[in-house]
Amino acid sequence: MRPSPYERHRELLQEAVRALAAGECRRPFTEATGQDAAEAGMRSTRTAGKVFGSLLGRPFDLDQPGELGRVATESSPYGTGTYGMGIGYPRCDPAALVAAAGRAAAGWRAAGPYQRAGLAVEILRRLNTRSHELALAVHHTTGQPPEAAFRAAGPRAQDRALEAVAHAFAESARVPADLSWESPRRRGQPPAMRGTCTLVPRGVSLLIGCPDYPLWNGYPGLFASLVTGNPVIVAPHPRSVLPLAITVRVARQVLAEAGHAPDIVTLAVAEPEERLHRRLATDPAVRIVDFTGSARFADWLEQHARQATVFANRTGLNTVIVDSTENYRGLVRGLARSLCLCSGTFRTTPQNILVPTTGIVTDEGHRSLRDFGADIREAVDRLLGHPARVTRLLGAITGNEVRAALAQAAQYGAVLSASRPLHHPDHPGADLRSPLLVRLGARDERIYAREWPGPVSFLVGTDSTSHSLALFRSTVVRHGAPYAAVHSTDPLVLAVAESAALDAGVHLVQNLADDFPADPSSAGADLPAAGAHFVTGRFRVVRSRRRVEPVAPAAVPAPILMAKPARVPVPDVGSATELLDV
Amino acid sequence: MRPSPYERHRELLQEAVRALAAGECRRPFTEATGQDAAEAGMRSTRTAGKVFGSLLGRPFDLDQPGELGRVATESSPYGTGTYGMGIGYPRCDPAALVAAAGRAAAGWRAAGPYQRAGLAVEILRRLNTRSHELALAVHHTTGQPPEAAFRAAGPRAQDRALEAVAHAFAESARVPADLSWESPRRRGQPPAMRGTCTLVPRGVSLLIGCPDYPLWNGYPGLFASLVTGNPVIVAPHPRSVLPLAITVRVARQVLAEAGHAPDIVTLAVAEPEERLHRRLATDPAVRIVDFTGSARFADWLEQHARQATVFANRTGLNTVIVDSTENYRGLVRGLARSLCLCSGTFRTTPQNILVPTTGIVTDEGHRSLRDFGADIREAVDRLLGHPARVTRLLGAITGNEVRAALAQAAQYGAVLSASRPLHHPDHPGADLRSPLLVRLGARDERIYAREWPGPVSFLVGTDSTSHSLALFRSTVVRHGAPYAAVHSTDPLVLAVAESAALDAGVHLVQNLADDFPADPSSAGADLPAAGAHFVTGRFRVVRSRRRVEPVAPAAVPAPILMAKPARVPVPDVGSATELLDV
Repeated sequence: MRPSPYERHRELLQEAVRALAAGECRRPFTEATGQDAAEAGMRSTRTAGKVFGSLLGRPFDLDQPGELGRVATESSPYGTGTYGMGIGYPRCDPAALVAAAGRAAAGWRAAGPYQRAGLAVEILRRLNTRSHELALAVHHTTGQPPEAAFRAAGPRAQDRALEAVAHAFAESARVPADLSWESPRRRGQPPAMRGTCTLVPRGVSLLIGCPDYPLWNGYPGLFASLVTGNPVIVAPHPRSVLPLAITVRVARQVLAEAGHAPDIVTLAVAEPEERLHRRLATDPAVRIVDFTGSARFADWLEQHARQATVFANRTGLNTVIVDSTENYRGLVRGLARSLCLCSGTFRTTPQNILVPTTGIVTDEGHRSLRDFGADIREAVDRLLGHPARVTRLLGAITGNEVRAALAQAAQYGAVLSASRPLHHPDHPGADLRSPLLVRLGARDERIYAREWPGPVSFLVGTDSTSHSLALFRSTVVRHGAPYAAVHSTDPLVLAVAESAALDAGVHLVQNLADDFPADPSSAGADLPAAGAHFVTGRFRVVRSRRRVEPVAPAAVPAPILMAKPARVPVPDVGSATELLDV
Repeated sequence: MRPSPYERHRELLQEAVRALAAGECRRPFTEATGQDAAEAGMRSTRTAGKVFGSLLGRPFDLDQPGELGRVATESSPYGTGTYGMGIGYPRCDPAALVAAAGRAAAGWRAAGPYQRAGLAVEILRRLNTRSHELALAVHHTTGQPPEAAFRAAGPRAQDRALEAVAHAFAESARVPADLSWESPRRRGQPPAMRGTCTLVPRGVSLLIGCPDYPLWNGYPGLFASLVTGNPVIVAPHPRSVLPLAITVRVARQVLAEAGHAPDIVTLAVAEPEERLHRRLATDPAVRIVDFTGSARFADWLEQHARQATVFANRTGLNTVIVDSTENYRGLVRGLARSLCLCSGTFRTTPQNILVPTTGIVTDEGHRSLRDFGADIREAVDRLLGHPARVTRLLGAITGNEVRAALAQAAQYGAVLSASRPLHHPDHPGADLRSPLLVRLGARDERIYAREWPGPVSFLVGTDSTSHSLALFRSTVVRHGAPYAAVHSTDPLVLAVAESAALDAGVHLVQNLADDFPADPSSAGADLPAAGAHFVTGRFRVVRSRRRVEPVAPAAVPAPILMAKPARVPVPDVGSATELLDV
C-alpha cells in the first residue's frame, strides 16, 4: 500500500514545525538545491527552457468548470515572438469557479490537517522539480533578470511556502480532537461528558496575484489557506499569469491523484476590463482574501470585501535610516546593489534613505550628505559599468506607470543619480533603466511619504538621527512598509529604531548592508508580518459534546465527521503537543 | 524577595495550558469552591452582602484620568432603596481614557507574556474572593436569580476567563524570542545571523459590556487582550455597570501593586444619549473591539469600527432539533427548565424548537406535536408551581423591550404556554414572567428567523427531521447562534446535525436535555466560537535581525526591547514547547 501523503513527508514537516517553534529559519529546498539539484529531482535549465518554449503561443489547459473562452494578457519585456507570449488561459465564469470551490470544500475539510499538510508538501516537491521553468515564467512576465527570478520563483519561494505549511499545520494539529469534562462532584470517576473539537475552515479563499513577485508573495496565503482546509481561487495579475498557472496545474494534478476534487485549487483569469478581482473579492462565498500590493487597493479590499477576512500586505514605504557605520564601503555598495536589484517593476526598492544633513561618522572618517550621495552614484555606475552585470542585476520595465514615475520623481529635487536607459545585449527590445536617486529635504513629506513604483529612491536630509527616527516612525506607522533597515554603531539608535519598528509593525534589519527582507535575495524567508493570526484567521473551532452514557453506549454513536481523512489512511501521530516534541 | 506574579501562579497556569492542549475542560476555581470556599479565600455571603450594601447610593471611585463628573444609570428590578442603586461612576472624557491607555501600552508590552499572564491570574484570584459580591452585583443589575447570578459571576466565569488567559499565554509564549539562520554555504558553522521575534499587541482594546451576562461574556475578551499586551477600556452596558466596575477596580489595584500603570484597565461610562460605545469603537487608537449581543449592533461595529479587529459574538437563533429520544421525561423537563432559566432579559433561550408535525418516537411511545407542547407546558407549570422555585429559576425583567416582545410574539400563533406575571415573595416590585411558548409552522420563517429577547420560544412544526435539519442549516448559517442542540437516537441524524453545525460554526450539544453552552449552568465553559484566532488576532509578530559579527561583537548590542519584564524578575521557563511538556 502506498504511504499516505502525510507519512511520505512526515519527517520534512515535523522538522519544519520544530524549527519554526525554535526560531530556526531553515530552508530545506534551498539547501537541497545547493547540494545537488539533480538529486532533488530538479529539471535542468535546458529541459526547463524546452518545456517553457512548448507553452508559448498555445492554450493552457486546466479542465476547469464554467469555461467561457480563452484570454491572453501577458507579454514578455524580453520578447518571445511576434505575438508576445500568446498563452491562452481558460476564462471561466467566476460564479462557476466559486461554486466548484464550494462543492470541493466538504471533502477537503474532511481530509483533516495531516492529509492536507502532506498534500501541500507534495505540491511543493513537484513545484521544486520545475523551479527553472517557474523561474523562466517569472523572468518573462515580471522582467526580473534570470538569477533574481530563480530566487523569487524557485527553492526560496518553496521554503517560504513550507514555512506557511508548517505554521498552518502546527496551529491546526494543535486543536485537540477530543474533549473531556470532569465533573467536580465526581472526581476520580470517568468524565461525565465527551466531545469533539473540530477545525472549521472559513470558506473559499481568493489569492490576488501581484505583478512583480507572483509566487514569492502568493505562496504563503495559498498554502496557509489550503492546509487550514479552504479551497483557493488563484486570480493572478493579468501581466503575470504563467507562474501561478503552472502552480495551479501542479496542485490540481496532485489533488486529483490523491482522489480529491481538483477544484480545491482553480485559476481565475479575465480581460482586465472585467474587474475580476473586485468581482471575486466581493462574492458572498469568498471568505478569505490574500493580497500584496498598493495601499490603495488594500484599502479598497478592506472596505468592500466585508464578508471576507482580508490579509493585505501593503508594499508601503521601505525606509533606510543611516546614522553611522563601521563598514562604509559595504554600506554604499550594498545600497547601490539594492537600488539596482529593485529595478524594473518591483516595489521592494529602499525608497526613503534618511540621513542627517550634517553627514555620518564612518570607518572612513566623516562623510557629508553630498559625499554619501556621490558615493552611491559612483557605486551604481560601477555596478552597471559592465553589460554582464547590467543583465544580471537590472529588471526590465513592464509597465508605463514606472516610466511615468521615473520622469516625475526627477523633477522634485536634485538628481543625485539619473535614471538612464541601458542596453540589454541579448534583448534589444527590453527596457532597462538605472535607478533614480533624488535628494529631498525632510519637509518634502508629500513626495516621499507616498509609494513610488520602480527604482525611485530619495535621499532625505534630516536635522539629526533623532529626526530621522521620528520621520520613520510617523511615515511608516501611517503608510506601512514590508521592512526597514537601520545602520548605526550606537546601541541607543538601534534600540530606538527597534522600538519604532515595533510600533509600526515592520520587520527591521540592523547593519545588514545588502539584505532586504522583502526581497527573495534576503537571507530570511519571512512570512508576512502577521504572526500566528496569518494562519489561525483562516479557520474557526467548533465544539460538539454529549454525555458519556455508562449504561447504553450504543445509543451514542461516534460522530462521523472528524478531522480524519476519508480516503487515505493516516497514521495516528497523536496530539499537537506530541508532534512538537519530535 | 517576593516571587514574580508568574512564579506565584505558575502551577495553575501550566496546568491550564496543558489541559487546554489535551482537550480537558478543567475548572479549577469551580472545583476549589466545591471543596472549600473558605480555603479559597472566598468571602462569605454575609460579608459580601455588607460590602455590596456599602456601595449603594455612593460614588464609586476609580481615580481615573479625565474625570468630568458622575453618572448613575442602574436600577435593580428587585429594588434597593428609594433612588434605585444610586452608584455614581466616574464619567471620564473618552479621549482622556484612550490617551491614558495609549501611554500605559508601552510598559505593558514590555512586561512580556509571562508577567502579564501571572498578573491576569492574580486578578482572577482576587475576583474569586469576591464572587458573592460580584454575584449580588449581577443579580441586582441583570435581574438574574441569586443562584444563576453566582454561576454567571463567580467561579465559573473565572474559569472561563482562565481558559482565555491560558490560551493567550500559550499562543504568546509560542512566539520564539530568538531567531537564528543557518547559511546553506557554511553548514556546521555558527549561524550567520541572529534575530528577535517580538509579539506586538494591536493597541487599545475596547470591551463593550452586555446587559445580561456582563462578566460571563466580558471576561474572555478582557483577559485575552490583557495577556496579549493590549490595554483595555471596559465600557459596560448602562443597565449593568457594577459587576464590571468591581472587576476594573480589582484589576487596577493588582496592576498598581505590581508597579504597572493602573490605566492598563479603565472603566468608561456615560449617559446613554452620549453614545459612548460608538464614540470609543470608532476611535482611531482603538484596535480591538469585543462585543456580545444583537446581530444588528455587531453589524454596525463591523461596518464602522474599521480601524479595529472586531470580535463580535452574535446572540442569534438558538435552535433545538427534536427527532427522537430515549429519555422523554428528561427531555421535556430539561426543555422546561431551560425555558424558565433563560427568562428575564437573557438572550440564551432555546428560541426555535424544531419538531416534525408527525410527532416523535420516544421511550414513552409516540408523542404528537400537540402532546409535546402540552407536556412542556405542564412541566413549566409544575416547575413554577412553588414560589421558592419561582424565585430560584426566574429572572426579573429589566427592560421594556422584553415586555413588548412577549406581547407581540403571542399574536403570531397558537400559544402553547402563556407568559404570565408571577409573584416574588420577597420583592413584590420585581417583574417576573413565565416563559412564552408559541406554535408556528415552518413557513413562518419571518417570525422565527429573527432574534427575540427574553423568554420567547417557538415550537416549529416541520415536515420531517430532514426538514428540521434543513431549516436549522439555512436559518443559522444566515443569522448565527451561540449554540444548537439535537435530540435523536438515530446516529445518522446526529451526524447530519453535526455537519450542519460545523457549516454554521455553532457549538452543538447532543442528547443533553438541560445543558446549553451559552448558559453558565452548562458543564462546558466554552470560549466564544473563534478558536485560536480569538487570541492570535490580538497581536502581530515582528522580526528583527542582524548579522552575528565574529570579530567585533561589542558593536552589535543586544536589543533592549524584549518580551522580558522590566521590573519583576521572571524565571527562565524556556520555549513554548517546553512549557507545554510540563
